[in-house]
Amino acid sequence: MHAVHRQVILSSRPNGIPQAEHFTIVEVDESQIREGQFLVRVEYWSVDPAMKGWTNLVANYAEPVAIGEVMRSSSVGTVIRSHHANYPIGTRVVGTFGWTELAVDDGRRVSRTIEADDLAPSLYLGPLGLTGVTAWFGLHDVCSPRPDDTVVVSTAAGSVGSIVGQLAKRMGCRTVGIAGGPVKVGLCLEQFGYDAAVDYRSPTFVEDLAAACPDGIDVYYDNTAGGISDAVHRLINRGARIAICGTASVESWDPVPLGPRVERLLLTKMARMQGFNAGMYRDKWNEAVAQLEALIRNGELRVREEILEGTDAAPDAIAGLYRGENLGKRVIRVS
Amino acid sequence: MHAVHRQVILSSRPNGIPQAEHFTIVEVDESQIREGQFLVRVEYWSVDPAMKGWTNLVANYAEPVAIGEVMRSSSVGTVIRSHHANYPIGTRVVGTFGWTELAVDDGRRVSRTIEADDLAPSLYLGPLGLTGVTAWFGLHDVCSPRPDDTVVVSTAAGSVGSIVGQLAKRMGCRTVGIAGGPVKVGLCLEQFGYDAAVDYRSPTFVEDLAAACPDGIDVYYDNTAGGISDAVHRLINRGARIAICGTASVESWDPVPLGPRVERLLLTKMARMQGFNAGMYRDKWNEAVAQLEALIRNGELRVREEILEGTDAAPDAIAGLYRGENLGKRVIRVS
Repeated sequence: MHAVHRQVILSSRPNGIPQAEHFTIVEVDESQIREGQFLVRVEYWSVDPAMKGWTNLVANYAEPVAIGEVMRSSSVGTVIRSHHANYPIGTRVVGTFGWTELAVDDGRRVSRTIEADDLAPSLYLGPLGLTGVTAWFGLHDVCSPRPDDTVVVSTAAGSVGSIVGQLAKRMGCRTVGIAGGPVKVGLCLEQFGYDAAVDYRSPTFVEDLAAACPDGIDVYYDNTAGGISDAVHRLINRGARIAICGTASVESWDPVPLGPRVERLLLTKMARMQGFNAGMYRDKWNEAVAQLEALIRNGELRVREEILEGTDAAPDAIAGLYRGENLGKRVIRVS
Repeated sequence: MHAVHRQVILSSRPNGIPQAEHFTIVEVDESQIREGQFLVRVEYWSVDPAMKGWTNLVANYAEPVAIGEVMRSSSVGTVIRSHHANYPIGTRVVGTFGWTELAVDDGRRVSRTIEADDLAPSLYLGPLGLTGVTAWFGLHDVCSPRPDDTVVVSTAAGSVGSIVGQLAKRMGCRTVGIAGGPVKVGLCLEQFGYDAAVDYRSPTFVEDLAAACPDGIDVYYDNTAGGISDAVHRLINRGARIAICGTASVESWDPVPLGPRVERLLLTKMARMQGFNAGMYRDKWNEAVAQLEALIRNGELRVREEILEGTDAAPDAIAGLYRGENLGKRVIRVS
């Protein structure tokens, strides 16, 4: 059996945000499986801010995707042919299969199999996958929030931020979201339960933030860096904890942009800035997912997905994230 | 009994480093004690980089010294008159008595009494006081070094840095000192046991630092901030820990100077920057001092003091620290 299918390859090297023209959709037939392999029909591709970094040739925590290679991403799908005892036909798998409609694998790219059949599989690319786990450990482990702490989240209505805000609220913190534009500010307040939300695009952003944090800031879950973070830093309390989860507001780090030096602030406030990613928590990953599954089942954690339809939506999908157009964890439903 | 004595008061407000002209030596008679008080003849005054911050009207972890007030400092002395049962005549006390020759206190400014009589009392202002405790907890608690880690220390021959380097070496780390000029670089190598030392004033500093750290940098004990730190940051390894202990290379933080933004670096390296001061470890202070006393007694920790003679040396003493002229923990022997 042959099965011609489509893949989205990185066809040229962006400097900064990858645009539609940096990708090419190609047709291939890579569906033959040997002993120990299986074939996955991929149902959803993930679209994450970190994928920008994977396309660039700069120091990063992952090797860049090579030109001509299938774009790297998390994906979820179902095994449709198998010569591998551990992955029989019908098994639902999450893995780094990339932006391809069919994937041959021997298990090495599988990050987990899905047992639950009551939750949408696409959730395992977001709130039950990288974004949920990133929110979980970034908040609980890196930020160590205490009840009554003021917790500020940037990109607060985003896929990671919206979960962080809700988890912090459950812990008894005062939660303040930073988001771009009235729609996202409204989502923060109405959907994700923030105690306050401020619009970083407003000319009164700095004053609005200060007014929303009358007791200062104890925890900052930073998804943006840049000028938004500079405003947050000025309000931190002694012993503040800052988790660096993303740098979405800075378009290019080559060369490294200048900003106010933070050493004196960290010193006088006895504060901490910590970069992290979910990969640091591989051994506790399933534990976090189990907790998040329970919260979603019970309706205690609201999650938003934005599902783009079809393979053709992929090339522009990362650029769209950086244009701030998505209202929830972005995934692509493979055609 | 009256006892006219001298005090060094802060007589005008510096912006940045306090110079001799910002202080005035005055004669007073403040030696009368009431019930519950005692009189200390102060023997040594401490001179520390942090005292610059205490003289400035900027956000800091301590209130600024008021104009007309005795300059705040740690001091060590002996009780010479007493109406306080816990502080009989002859008790040796360390406390924040400031730059005064005689001090009336009720115990509130005493940080500890000294039991050991085999160690010079001035050591309790340095290696057995703030600087030693700062080195101890900054290294052990904030940096969590592991054997074979490369540990870089700025102002490596200074009063804090020289202790950090020796403690890290005892833990099996590779130690690299950064210091200004050949004399201090020589001290690093010959007195304080650094595996390598580089001169930040050299035009080849950046290359020299890279050559001294062939396996990258796991721990950075930062006493300087500024351009020296920028060079260190570029070499950090995944999981690096940066302790912010001081900002000696930056003359003024008003306005906050610009530097390369660190968020992306911390993110991609999963690294941590933590500001701290010894005050965070008040409850474990004596434990650290006991360990440091033992190391000094056994000759396992080399310490250097620079003793300035007499009250008249005080007004220029902080400025001199920032000119980099001291070769060891600076104290003033009160005349």
